[in-house]
Order: sequence, then C-alpha cells, then structure tokens
Amino acid sequence: MKLPLGYAYSAMYAGIRAAEKDDLALIVSGLPATAAAVFTQNRVQAAPVKLSRRHLKASRGLVGALLINAGNANCATRTGDAVALATVRAAAKMLRLPPAQVLPASTGVIGVELDPDKIVDALPRLVGGLSAERFDDAARAIMTTDLVPKTAFAEARLRRGTVRVAGMTKGSGMIHPRMATTLGFVLTDAVIPAAQLRAMLKRGVERSYNRISVDGDTSTNDTLVLLANGASGVRPDAKEMARVEATITGVMESLARQIARDGEGARKLITITVSGAAGDTAAERMARAIANSPLVKTAVAGSDPNWGRILSAAGNAGVAFDPAKTDVYMQGVAVCKGGLAAPFSEQDLKHKLDAAECEIRLVVRGKGKGKAHFWTCDFTEGYIRINASYRT
Amino acid sequence: MKLPLGYAYSAMYAGIRAAEKDDLALIVSGLPATAAAVFTQNRVQAAPVKLSRRHLKASRGLVGALLINAGNANCATRTGDAVALATVRAAAKMLRLPPAQVLPASTGVIGVELDPDKIVDALPRLVGGLSAERFDDAARAIMTTDLVPKTAFAEARLRRGTVRVAGMTKGSGMIHPRMATTLGFVLTDAVIPAAQLRAMLKRGVERSYNRISVDGDTSTNDTLVLLANGASGVRPDAKEMARVEATITGVMESLARQIARDGEGARKLITITVSGAAGDTAAERMARAIANSPLVKTAVAGSDPNWGRILSAAGNAGVAFDPAKTDVYMQGVAVCKGGLAAPFSEQDLKHKLDAAECEIRLVVRGKGKGKAHFWTCDFTEGYIRINASYRT
Repeated sequence: MKLPLGYAYSAMYAGIRAAEKDDLALIVSGLPATAAAVFTQNRVQAAPVKLSRRHLKASRGLVGALLINAGNANCATRTGDAVALATVRAAAKMLRLPPAQVLPASTGVIGVELDPDKIVDALPRLVGGLSAERFDDAARAIMTTDLVPKTAFAEARLRRGTVRVAGMTKGSGMIHPRMATTLGFVLTDAVIPAAQLRAMLKRGVERSYNRISVDGDTSTNDTLVLLANGASGVRPDAKEMARVEATITGVMESLARQIARDGEGARKLITITVSGAAGDTAAERMARAIANSPLVKTAVAGSDPNWGRILSAAGNAGVAFDPAKTDVYMQGVAVCKGGLAAPFSEQDLKHKLDAAECEIRLVVRGKGKGKAHFWTCDFTEGYIRINASYRT
Repeated sequence: MKLPLGYAYSAMYAGIRAAEKDDLALIVSGLPATAAAVFTQNRVQAAPVKLSRRHLKASRGLVGALLINAGNANCATRTGDAVALATVRAAAKMLRLPPAQVLPASTGVIGVELDPDKIVDALPRLVGGLSAERFDDAARAIMTTDLVPKTAFAEARLRRGTVRVAGMTKGSGMIHPRMATTLGFVLTDAVIPAAQLRAMLKRGVERSYNRISVDGDTSTNDTLVLLANGASGVRPDAKEMARVEATITGVMESLARQIARDGEGARKLITITVSGAAGDTAAERMARAIANSPLVKTAVAGSDPNWGRILSAAGNAGVAFDPAKTDVYMQGVAVCKGGLAAPFSEQDLKHKLDAAECEIRLVVRGKGKGKAHFWTCDFTEGYIRINASYRT
C-alpha cells in the first residue's frame, strides 16, 4: 500500500532525552493541508498545545508542517511558551512557511525546562533529511515508553482515483479516554473541505481514541491532528465522502488499539463489548467501567476467569441494568448467565486466556439496544516497574 | 481504654475459606442497639446487603447481633438470598432474638455458592464462645487480603459519665470512596436516638470512608454499621452530643486511614490535602483525582518527587483552577511553585519519601477557601501479584 502523496518526513536524535534514540520528528506537507485537531481536556495544558490551538486559529486551519519532540513535554516550565514559539518560528523560516502553519507537539517528562537550542540547532539536519519514505523513522522518534512504533495505513478507491491514509501515534501510559489521548498524526491526500474534516475527526475520535484506557490518567500534552493535503487531486463526491471517513476512522481505530495493546507493562489486548444496555451511552459507561477496573485487568493478567469482578465493575458504572438478566462471556465462553455462575471448564478457559488477545462480552438480555466497544490492556507488575522510576 | 459496655464477641473457623483462619464472627449487643448503616452503591448488591436493608426497616433500626463471614461474598449466587436468611434465622433462634434484629455481612469471592450448613453447624460453638473480651478475635475473623486487623477505640468523658466507642473494619482492595467502603462495625455504649445516630453516621462517612481509595473499585458487599446500645446509661445532653459525634467520627477516620495504609501491596500511606480551591467540593474532587492517579501512586512507591504527575492529576479533576497559582508540597518540601519547578534537593526529598507516610499538599493561592483531605496508598507490584491470582 502506498503512503499518501505529498508528505515528507524526517527524524533525528537532538539530545532532548538521555537515551540516544531519535527524539525529534518533522512532518511536512508540500501543499498546505486542511487540518483538524483535538487536544487534551486537562486543565493543565502544555505550551505546544496552547500554541497549536492559536496557530490553527490564525492560519484558518491550514498546516504546512508538524514539529514533534519526545523526551520533554514542555509543560509547567518557566520558558515553555517562548520555547515552543522559538522552535516553531525557526522551523517555519527554514521551510519558508508562515509560522502559524507550523504546529508543535511534545511528549515526555513534565516540569523540566526544554532547551530550545537543541531543537533549533538540529533543524538544518532535520530539514535536510526530509524524505517521502521516512514515515517509519518519524513514527519511531515520537515514542516514549512505547515498546513498538504504532502506524496504520489504508486506502479508498474512488471513482476519480485512489486516496490514501496513513497514521502514526504514540502512547503507552497516561492513557485514558474522553479526549484525544496521546499524540497522533493522521495524514491523507484526499481533498476534504475543512468543516467536513473537523466533523470526521470528531466522530472518529469518539469511536477510537476515546474508547481506550491504559491507566485512567490523561496527559497535559495530548494532541491528535488530521491533515488532508489534497495531493491525490481526488475530490470525493458526496457519497464517497462516507467511505473516506470510514477509511480514516479505520486508521484511527487501528492506532488506538495499538496503544491499548502496548499499554505500559501490558501483555494482552482486552476488547470489551457491551450490548443490550438502555442506550449507547449507558453501554459505553459500562464498558468503560470494566476497562478501568484494576481488578478486572489484573485478573486477565493472571488468566483468571474472575467474572464476579466484571459484573461488579459494570455495577459501578452508575447505570441502571438488571444483573439477573446479565450474561458475561470471556473468549466466547459463557462464564456468567443471568448474573450467576455458568458451568465452564476452568482449565480450558485459563488456557484460552493465556492468548495475546482477550475478549470480554457483557450482554444484558432485555429490550435495550445500546451497545459499545472499548479497548484496554491487562495490568501487570511491569506497569509498576516502569512508572515507579520513569522520571529519574 | 475500656471497650464499650454491653457487647460480646466471638469468632471461629467455619471452613468457608480454604486457609484455616477464623472466617466467622459474631457481635452481640445485650440490649438491642439503635443502629444506623450505609451500604454499597454498586448496582450489583450481595444477598446479605439486601437482607440487612430489609431487616433494618422491619426492626425499625434495632439490632441485637451482627453475623459476619469472610471467604465468600454470598453475591451473584443462585441460593444467596436463602442462605443469608437461613443463617441469620438460625443465629436469631439461638440468641432468642427476632430475626429482623440480626444483620448479616459477607466478604470474599463473588459468584461461588455459600454452603449455609457450614455457618449453621458452627453456630453453637460460635454463640458458646461469646465474650466481652474477644473484640480482637472478631476483628481478625473478618479479614480477607488484609495484612493486619484494623481497630480503633475512643472515649468521651461527659458530665454524667463516660461513653466508649470501638470500631473494627476490613478492606485492602476494591477500595474506593463515594460509599461506605468495605465492612466496618462501630459500637458505642452511649444513648443516642436513632435519627441522630443516622445523621452522625452520614456525616462521619463523608469525612472518613468516603475519603479513601486503594484501587478505584467498589465492592458488592460494602457495609458500615454503627450501633449504640446505651449500656453506659449515659445520655449526652445537646451540647455533649457534638463531642460524642467527634469521638465516633475520630474512630471512623482512624479505621479508614488503616484501610488505606493496608491497601493491597501498599508500603506507604499517602495523605493528600488540597486548599484554596473554589469550594470544598472542588477541593475534594482535586484531592480524589490525585489519590486515584496510578501515576502519582507509582511515583510515591518509587520515592520519586514527580510533581508534574500531581499537577496533571489535579488538572483531570474537571474543576477550574489556575495552575499558575498552584503550589505543590511533598513531605513539606515545596516541589512546585506557581505551576513551575521549585528548587529542592532531589537526594534529600527522595530520602524523605522513603518514609512509611507520604504527605502531598496542593495549595491554590487565591480567593478560594475550599479544602479537603484524602487518603490513599502507594501502588506497588504487590497489588498486581495479589490480584492476578486472588480467586484461584
């Protein structure tokens, strides 16, 4: 599958983090792209988030480049705003773009001053290294505690030609929905008007990034940007726009699932589905409550079919449902029928739960039509090890 | 300090749990006691919770005995309601009490049938073992993953004599506020009218059990009962009632703190205080968000003064405040001033954070007068170890 046309990528080590792995990435669109973005809902917002919001407004949603660093969140620092502005201006100058068409994004430790010179000094080499082929290098450079880079690709063949979508994201801890969690960048070469692009992003986030949870924490820097530079020359017609949206949403769902799977310390991806709730919102709240329960997540880590914890977690969602009409399935095996233990082979199911993917399905039998999915990961000692010593 | 007058206790091993430690407790009041109780707000409620509610109504708030078992929650079982009723009736018969004056409480695994015969057969020995001295035995018998029994004692010397308060509680995981978390039993020999006793319990829970969190999960069985049997013969006057309430609340706060300190896998008690928020509710939400952040709790486990996580967690509380006017203290050391890093000796503070108690203080400088406290524990690999294999 080909990458979207009209984008170039670069990455390098600029000395921002101690470990010598790339920590600076640049994504450039040859034509200024129509952009839509969502940012953290945390009250504490990092300098690059504030500047990105301002730039999107000033540029009326046009973006020429994304400048992303890992290793330092540029948040809660004395010089944060000035650093974000200085580095973005330097990049804009070198790329001959209006500064407002460059968006910064940062991820890493909070509260440590970020030295702008490290980025400014690196820019000549970073810009010099731009290439349409270096998508994966950029995806690697934005990683923090991620074990693997997270990318997704898709295309849609439309009447007038093919449009392509590519996405990269990072995130492993501090992952919680109700926002655009972590950093994510989704690129397409389709022609999509700004208002439609924003609506697509909003709906897509609701089905993807807002349906994952690793640890219930949300960061100060979360940013998800969707760019459409039109380089394919293909303008989808009204009917085709729905297919393009499905293609973009598919990429976002894949990225979100990859984040959950790579949750800090995680060994298993858990997919939770709830059906038969009073409405979709009720189903989502129940699925979310199960996904956020450390007791459910530790049980899955131990391959323990402890359905009582699943039922109890759903009971904590603050949503009305009848436990006596509720069934629970794990890996397709009925473990609870009508709120009571169902007969199953403990041995067999334990074995099935050793797989890299775990499915938990909660079904309320009744008149409700509400359903929802949610992704999370198991909760292991690795999470603690990583986070008890991340900063130092 | 003497125990409250007029209560007797018993405990024994009835074979409900596999490990041979006491799993059945009985608390009897010689005179029927005025009772107030709060129960879990989980949608899934255990049989003993449902029966206790019914009995309290039927007896108009009079309680003669509490029958408590550990090792099985008697929840989400086919025979749960019948088991709770049969065991309570057998106990009532042996104690010559109306059945409605006996309240059951259970804690342990969910979804496994509880054999009523184990309890019924044990009753003669359990009742035979009743003694005013066996308070500690009962406190031990209600433990599950608790490492230590949790008890608290207090007395108030009033004009007409002394009244005493004693409490026992259990709980180590599935601990989350917004309810009467876990099992707790608080006894006093003061004469307190029912309506006042209920009001005291409500206010006291708000300041104690509703201000602790271990893992954000809430159980199906949580029960807190406050009994006042009047055996001291001391009826506090209107003025003294406030002192009695403070004494009872003090016991409840001590019990709640002990639960947080003994959180599954915990090595440290964390006390969080927030001041300067817009109101007490805003302060409570911020303190709760900090207490529930796994990233804050793992940082404390690693003695890492990672104040950025504290600020970020407060930012997730959904409450308006100005980060630029916010200071954070750990162990009394300013680590963040006005939302920015404050200078401190990393080495010294790391050493201070190795203590068994950690204080986190967040101060918003401004016009707000809202303040709140919250207790939680650090988050260690031990929590995962315990919960990945609790059931099996």
